[in-house]
Amino acid sequence: MKRKRVVVIKIGGNVINNAATLSALLHDVAKIDGMKVLVHGGGRLLDEFSARLGLAQHMKDGRRITDAETLSLATMVYAGQTNKSIVAQLQALECLAIGLCGADAGLIKAARRPIQNGIDFGFVGDVSRESVNTRVLVSLLETGFVPVFSAITCDASGQLLNTNADTIAFSLATALAGECDVQLHYCFEKRGVLLDLQDEGSLISEINESYYQQLVADQVIASGMLPKLENAFSAIRQGVQTVSIIHPDALLKAIKKNKNAGTYLTA
Amino acid sequence: MKRKRVVVIKIGGNVINNAATLSALLHDVAKIDGMKVLVHGGGRLLDEFSARLGLAQHMKDGRRITDAETLSLATMVYAGQTNKSIVAQLQALECLAIGLCGADAGLIKAARRPIQNGIDFGFVGDVSRESVNTRVLVSLLETGFVPVFSAITCDASGQLLNTNADTIAFSLATALAGECDVQLHYCFEKRGVLLDLQDEGSLISEINESYYQQLVADQVIASGMLPKLENAFSAIRQGVQTVSIIHPDALLKAIKKNKNAGTYLTA
Repeated sequence: MKRKRVVVIKIGGNVINNAATLSALLHDVAKIDGMKVLVHGGGRLLDEFSARLGLAQHMKDGRRITDAETLSLATMVYAGQTNKSIVAQLQALECLAIGLCGADAGLIKAARRPIQNGIDFGFVGDVSRESVNTRVLVSLLETGFVPVFSAITCDASGQLLNTNADTIAFSLATALAGECDVQLHYCFEKRGVLLDLQDEGSLISEINESYYQQLVADQVIASGMLPKLENAFSAIRQGVQTVSIIHPDALLKAIKKNKNAGTYLTA
Repeated sequence: MKRKRVVVIKIGGNVINNAATLSALLHDVAKIDGMKVLVHGGGRLLDEFSARLGLAQHMKDGRRITDAETLSLATMVYAGQTNKSIVAQLQALECLAIGLCGADAGLIKAARRPIQNGIDFGFVGDVSRESVNTRVLVSLLETGFVPVFSAITCDASGQLLNTNADTIAFSLATALAGECDVQLHYCFEKRGVLLDLQDEGSLISEINESYYQQLVADQVIASGMLPKLENAFSAIRQGVQTVSIIHPDALLKAIKKNKNAGTYLTA
């Protein structure tokens, strides 16, 4: 029996920040046939609101420490403004978007991150393939809905938690891979993985895990890209068929598996 | 054929403001058998954020004028923080809540309110029974989901709109009344409709439309209660079987049609 295809698209924060880029991407998303899932990052709106409210942002190793007030703001911005704005735009394109966070319909049950090496990340949730209620997700997809996920989850006690959007996309894609052929596309502001961040011409169009490990050893890959690539290779190991890291312009090409679209990952 | 029952519960803003009252209500909601829909008002969080950000609130005849910035904040607070907090609490009670605004799944298509008598209400949406995609709503209910609606909608162009929560509850209830036996319960901070606002003992336990018209003519009913009662009687005229205006404490009693629970409306 032919397995159904699902396209999972992660929309990066810098794409969210640019209204024209986002709008063009959503027009392309509306054109994709069949089952699809969107996951969006945060963008700068949270930082702007934090600044306007005079809240200090606490970072540790480039990651936000989420205190109660930051969690509340993140829920407002990600699950409220950003999520509903994307959904409303898709609805106007006759795409049956439904905006969700992990708490909705019990779709993603996160675990609050324990204190590690003395660092308390606050209200942060960790998720994996096992966190996803695949049955409910597939039933939404088969009904024709296009789930649009913000990066907010909750734990079993009902505590909302701030969660990494790349990890949510990874978790949804790997959970779906048990039943469907899954394509996972990370859309962000660059053309793909670059050998030289300053040079868009230095794009790596195809990368496998051994080449990746060599580039990591040579310290060629920018540190911000490492978690994304770790996620991506882990997704392939867990059965996701196609993973790409691309600019939104290249999404429709990448879905057709045109290898001249961004960075294409292979096993 | 016996028609299915749906219970539609509107949670007032002042109930949202009191964490203990809200929590007790959600525990009761989780106990209700069968299909149910929640609609929640705003509460004071929007006013608090507006004040902290130094935004002036513009009111006209007791109604908020929604400029672009207020709409953004309303979307953040209602569809983000308040909605997801209710959903997460219900999930912890093993109630399969799914947080939605009218834009999600194309469930409620509003019309932006035209300028009336020179008043531009801004980004405000008007909705009615015809605005609701009943087929999608019933399919969500039959799947076992408990939709939790915030009072944000969008129009056909994808413009998000601030919308009155009582009117959303009315519209959902009357749309569902075509297919189901519908109970509509307005939960708010009073025991029901009072003859004297200062005296909780002056509760009207049952009211029909002619008694209501007489009380309006006698100017006995507080002005804030008038739109709620207009909605409520209109719901009965449009086929909703039971309408009550109650304190959250009385919800389970009201669902059993115990007439000693709040104010019970009859045709």
